[in-house]
Amino acid sequence: MKTIHTAFLGLGNVGCGVYRLLDMQKEAFASRSDLAFSVDRILVRDLDRPRRVKVSRDRLTVDVDEIVNDPDITLVAEFMGGIEPAATYMERMLLAGKSVVTANKQALANAWPRLSAAAMKTGAGLYFEASVCGGIPVIETLLSSLQSNRVESIMGIINGTCNYILSRMSEGMEYEDALAEAQEKGLAEPDPTADVEGADATCKLAILSTLAFGKSVTVDDVYCEGISSLTREALQFGADMGYTLKSLAVAKEKDGRLQLHVHPAFLPNRHPIASVSGAYNAVYIRGNAVEDIMLSGKGAGDMPTASSVVSDMVKVATRQVHPAVDFQESNRPYLDEDWICGNFLCLHVEDKSGVMAKLFGILSHYGLSAASVTQPRRAEKAERVPVIVTTYPCREQAMRAALVDIRALPEVGSVLRIRMEEME
Amino acid sequence: MKTIHTAFLGLGNVGCGVYRLLDMQKEAFASRSDLAFSVDRILVRDLDRPRRVKVSRDRLTVDVDEIVNDPDITLVAEFMGGIEPAATYMERMLLAGKSVVTANKQALANAWPRLSAAAMKTGAGLYFEASVCGGIPVIETLLSSLQSNRVESIMGIINGTCNYILSRMSEGMEYEDALAEAQEKGLAEPDPTADVEGADATCKLAILSTLAFGKSVTVDDVYCEGISSLTREALQFGADMGYTLKSLAVAKEKDGRLQLHVHPAFLPNRHPIASVSGAYNAVYIRGNAVEDIMLSGKGAGDMPTASSVVSDMVKVATRQVHPAVDFQESNRPYLDEDWICGNFLCLHVEDKSGVMAKLFGILSHYGLSAASVTQPRRAEKAERVPVIVTTYPCREQAMRAALVDIRALPEVGSVLRIRMEEME
Repeated sequence: MKTIHTAFLGLGNVGCGVYRLLDMQKEAFASRSDLAFSVDRILVRDLDRPRRVKVSRDRLTVDVDEIVNDPDITLVAEFMGGIEPAATYMERMLLAGKSVVTANKQALANAWPRLSAAAMKTGAGLYFEASVCGGIPVIETLLSSLQSNRVESIMGIINGTCNYILSRMSEGMEYEDALAEAQEKGLAEPDPTADVEGADATCKLAILSTLAFGKSVTVDDVYCEGISSLTREALQFGADMGYTLKSLAVAKEKDGRLQLHVHPAFLPNRHPIASVSGAYNAVYIRGNAVEDIMLSGKGAGDMPTASSVVSDMVKVATRQVHPAVDFQESNRPYLDEDWICGNFLCLHVEDKSGVMAKLFGILSHYGLSAASVTQPRRAEKAERVPVIVTTYPCREQAMRAALVDIRALPEVGSVLRIRMEEME
Repeated sequence: MKTIHTAFLGLGNVGCGVYRLLDMQKEAFASRSDLAFSVDRILVRDLDRPRRVKVSRDRLTVDVDEIVNDPDITLVAEFMGGIEPAATYMERMLLAGKSVVTANKQALANAWPRLSAAAMKTGAGLYFEASVCGGIPVIETLLSSLQSNRVESIMGIINGTCNYILSRMSEGMEYEDALAEAQEKGLAEPDPTADVEGADATCKLAILSTLAFGKSVTVDDVYCEGISSLTREALQFGADMGYTLKSLAVAKEKDGRLQLHVHPAFLPNRHPIASVSGAYNAVYIRGNAVEDIMLSGKGAGDMPTASSVVSDMVKVATRQVHPAVDFQESNRPYLDEDWICGNFLCLHVEDKSGVMAKLFGILSHYGLSAASVTQPRRAEKAERVPVIVTTYPCREQAMRAALVDIRALPEVGSVLRIRMEEME
């Protein structure tokens, strides 16, 4: 039996899940792979804090050097979260020749080049399946199953908090109530900013795009809009037209340039990922040979995430050579920030003649053509009435310029613009 | 640059697809992995047949020994189809130390133990992603991403021909017309038996179950029913009740026993794989940690299948150690042929009193309880009328016994029984 001496950095929810899963699968590892994992050391902040798993006190340490300097430990699993000190600790482990498995998208998306350089220097493995979409094997699929393809696009629902909130809003809740419910259920953090404003999805999309397109994509390359300004009303009007609202992460290669954006978007109801609801995640990938494939499942949660961490640990234990991503300055992507998509505008306008003419004047000035105009209900007295305008697919920058002018019209109150994807 | 000298066994549609894909991805392999594939030799039956790809005549051979005895060739991709001589050729390649990549589910499902033994003897790799579900990376997911889980169940739409036919029937076509259309479109063979009677799905389920449960599952272990006796009428009645009809491959582990069955079944419309239609395949997997994940995509087609073949070729080229499945007689599964599922019975009965009483008498005799009884339309004159009876989940063997008695009732004409899955 081969015993892999392991250390954990952190012992929060995912760490406890991994600890439990290693125990649950102990016999399977022994009988199928002649393999055992021993968790020798666990770095914690507070030795005395109560834990959800029973760990003998003498394995806990507050000193990372005890792990770095332990020659028996060949595998380190990181569950600290945040960029620092997690990234520096992982780098030290890799430089000491220890393979690292991490669930930390933030540290990876922000410090990947130096982590990768450290791994390549010593031949240690750096695995991160759990950093994107919990238990869904999207990293392994990009690294090993789609290397036969030129990936053309990725479209993902990769933030479960947003997807839960939007699913509840489509059932009639307002944003604030859906967020509060998600927080109650533990699906949103007390400070939900990173999820609802898109930073979380941005990290994940940077990681996926780096693997899919072979370019060093950073979080700063990804255009990002959150979901907090969406209204139940706009969702409902879109639903009436056959669309489902999702917070999408989109990456496309077009003429050698990458389009990278995270934002809410309407999809036609018939699109395969339109029906992925609640806390589920899905990634829809198009390749030049495979055509389209979709992976979906629980995008978060202790045990689904632990599933990915432990499968990475088994890879470390059973592979002789680890895959490596070579980051070079020359390998930066060319970005295309003027991508094409349809638009759904939910406007509240004064119900008087001439307003629509002005609106269409602006659209036409910027070369945009409306696909439909709908006034879902009649005005009563002098109130503003909602008007839904959809456009044919058009250039992003032209739309943004038009929106500035539309918002400046005195007859126009609120303007909510939602992109429309996969309309062809 | 590392050049992998390769041979093909066969050059049909998938072989031509692989040949083209290797050429399309040539630069990507060179720049990303410093790797080149050279197709040195191609075994064909007829040297003079016209081909869809341009291959120089001197690489073609009709003599398999030329490949076996060529020491430069380290990788052989097999596209012959059928069990023999494909299995024996692959075994000879493996024994000669050449890694084999195959898309041949039949040869694998029927000759896996001896192929695996040959591979383990020489350390050669045996890869077969393309044998199940075309471009969908379900084999790699089971082999490398779910090894951290105890797989509890697999439920798949793994035959695109059946799924296409059932999708068309749900749109109102009769079975014969849908089959004819599938044949016209090249989605069904001139002799469709292997697809529509379930033999194809049986091979695939045996392969998936072997990997998922770590047991030597053979095609004979899988209970199988085809789709050819289904009627548009029954589909429609089921649709009215909120169910979608699919040809399902199901594998479950229950108390150490495996339930393995391929047959048509109704799913609730809300189930994630209910909306997978047309020539798409989907595999829905439950594991003790990952909870549920689903993979879907094109389950057949030259290029999606080539995508999986070429990704396996890259694995052969870049891995030092190949995964192996150890088949031992002691590792045979214990089967549970008395699984539990709901039932949907579409009966045509004489419209006279006492019939329903007899029917319920039989159900109750076998301990089965009806969940609903519906008579979708009134009888006119003395004709038989359709009656839909659904049962609560019950034991398979009790249902089969009850069906024998129901079919023996003189008042009952045709009896179509369709299982119902995932009803809880």
